Amino acid sequence: MIAKTPEPPYYAVIFSSVRTPIDEGYDEMSDAMEELVKKQPGFLGFESARNEIGITVSYWKDLESIRNWRNNSEHTIARLTGRNKWYKSYKVRIAKVEGDYDFLKG
Amino acid sequence: MIAKTPEPPYYAVIFSSVRTPIDEGYDEMSDAMEELVKKQPGFLGFESARNEIGITVSYWKDLESIRNWRNNSEHTIARLTGRNKWYKSYKVRIAKVEGDYDFLKG
Repeated sequence: MIAKTPEPPYYAVIFSSVRTPIDEGYDEMSDAMEELVKKQPGFLGFESARNEIGITVSYWKDLESIRNWRNNSEHTIARLTGRNKWYKSYKVRIAKVEGDYDFLKG
Repeated sequence: MIAKTPEPPYYAVIFSSVRTPIDEGYDEMSDAMEELVKKQPGFLGFESARNEIGITVSYWKDLESIRNWRNNSEHTIARLTGRNKWYKSYKVRIAKVEGDYDFLKG
C-alpha cells in the first residue's frame, strides 16, 4: 500500500537492503517490528517492496521521532540480529520530504 | 543494487506505485528510461524493487536536476503513457537526504 502521509514537510527513512540466504526468524521479526513501529510517536506510515533488493521507506513527523525509534530497545535487538543473520548489506538514508504529489486513476 | 551515492546532502525522488494488469510496452519503456536517466546531469543513482507495490528511489545532486529530468520530453511521454496504461496509482515524494550510513558484512 502507498502510505497516506500528511502535507510536507515530514521525514523519510529510506532503508535499502540485500538479504543473506538465511530466512530463520525473519518473517516473525519483520511482523513484530511492523506492529511495534505503528505504535511509535511521530510514525506516519511505511512502504516496502523487495525482489533483488529490498526498499522500505518509513515516514516520520520529525527527526526526534526517528531517533526515538532508533533507540527503542526491541528495535535495537532486531537491528543487531539483522546484521548478524538476515542482511548482507544495507544503507539507511534520512531525508526531509519537501514536496509530494499523487496520481490516482479516476 | 544499493546505489553508491556521495556524502549528503543530495536529493531523493521516492516514486511509489501500484500497477495496472497491463504489461504491454512496460519493460521496453522501463529499460529506455533507465538508460536515459543515467545520462542526465546531476543523476547520482537509483534503486528499485517491486512486489505488491513498486518503490523506485532516484538520487540527484539538486532540485534543478530533478526539474530538468521532469521536463525531459521523452520522460514526459513515458509519464503520460504510464498514467494511461501501466499505473493505477502512484505517489512521488521529493526529499533532501540529510544523512546516511551503511552496513556491509565484513
